[in-house]
Amino acid sequence: MQAQPDVDDLKVIAFDVFGTVVDWHGGIAAEVERLLPGVDGGAFALAWRAGYQPAMRGVMERIAAGEGGFTLLDELHLSILENVLRDLGVTRLDAAHKRELNRAWHRLPAWPDAVAGLARLKSKYIVCTLSNGNIGLLTEMAKHAGLPWDCVLSAEVFKAYKPDPRTYLGVAGVFDIAPRQVMLAAAHHDDLAAARACGLRTAYIERPNEFGAAQPKDVSPQAGNELHVADIGVLADRLGC
Amino acid sequence: MQAQPDVDDLKVIAFDVFGTVVDWHGGIAAEVERLLPGVDGGAFALAWRAGYQPAMRGVMERIAAGEGGFTLLDELHLSILENVLRDLGVTRLDAAHKRELNRAWHRLPAWPDAVAGLARLKSKYIVCTLSNGNIGLLTEMAKHAGLPWDCVLSAEVFKAYKPDPRTYLGVAGVFDIAPRQVMLAAAHHDDLAAARACGLRTAYIERPNEFGAAQPKDVSPQAGNELHVADIGVLADRLGC
Repeated sequence: MQAQPDVDDLKVIAFDVFGTVVDWHGGIAAEVERLLPGVDGGAFALAWRAGYQPAMRGVMERIAAGEGGFTLLDELHLSILENVLRDLGVTRLDAAHKRELNRAWHRLPAWPDAVAGLARLKSKYIVCTLSNGNIGLLTEMAKHAGLPWDCVLSAEVFKAYKPDPRTYLGVAGVFDIAPRQVMLAAAHHDDLAAARACGLRTAYIERPNEFGAAQPKDVSPQAGNELHVADIGVLADRLGC
Repeated sequence: MQAQPDVDDLKVIAFDVFGTVVDWHGGIAAEVERLLPGVDGGAFALAWRAGYQPAMRGVMERIAAGEGGFTLLDELHLSILENVLRDLGVTRLDAAHKRELNRAWHRLPAWPDAVAGLARLKSKYIVCTLSNGNIGLLTEMAKHAGLPWDCVLSAEVFKAYKPDPRTYLGVAGVFDIAPRQVMLAAAHHDDLAAARACGLRTAYIERPNEFGAAQPKDVSPQAGNELHVADIGVLADRLGC
């Protein structure tokens, strides 16, 4: 059994969302199979998500070069979707159906432990999102999945994307507290490392099936995280909620 | 009985907060009397709130002149508090107690109809704040009073204060909908008029005791509001929730 962490002054737990709180792979696969019968939903989901990092890098480079403004994740998802459809030779979706499919990201299902775990944490801490998703997307997702956030914080609030320090430090700024009083909870070590570099506490959440049960993810611990837990229920246990 | 409003395409109800959802007069008066025994809490609350409009005008003028940045309402409240204490000759509060008193705005009580009314509206619409209060203030207030917002929108998100059109149109932008699909609910006709000028629907909420029971406010209807209701419960009735 791990020791109880020293978290006396902790006030806010900010959650990464895609993969950490909701199952994007399962949710997108199901919606693709609903809207595009005959298409392999799991492979489609992986291709769509694989387009995210390069697209986000492109946006950040354009902003850094003074050539572009802040872009909502909904817009980014739609442009990646166009590429995926083209690469797969799928031509049967009109603009309205593409838009409908793009909103599948607003309807992703929560991991089974998320709603109850967040409700427990909320009894003691402020629980919020910290995602590159846009506010509308995250709000509709929360309403659909029943995620009980105290507030929705996003790249859109800070006009900067993770892993930009303005996002992690922005959470502390919103609540007028020290970075150490914020914990980032995420299923991604790079996100957590960037938060830790800003002085936040970090909790790794194992999500071995983030990319589907067919290709389990390595969820080994890495040094530096205050906590490493199987799911959000265990996080609530460890924080005494 | 008023006719049922035509609101088929309504998606979001955005609420003004101070006076509309929470009782700033009663809340501040009680906290002043707790922290400053012997001081007239009601008069103190009125003086503090009376400083808001001139202070906010000053901020907006400095921003327009390129001389100042966005200022959080918490900071504005603290500077007004200094003035009120000086005007009343109250010298017994140190910096920590001033800060504690300033956070009384984070702990304001909801009007008795607010929590249940919002929960009913939330079953059918997205319900959010649209306030010049900062995100941290509004989030802590919601947690304290049990206000079940789907998300917290604020001047801090749009980097503009009401009645700037960027705030009202910003709500529509966040949810990628037309201005007519957003309704502003507020106890202040000037706020509603500014929202209507941007194409939003509007609902006036009567709060005759906003300034205390001793000086009831005129809550007469004004032309142009889609709805005029006694409280948030009646708003839910009228919208069929």
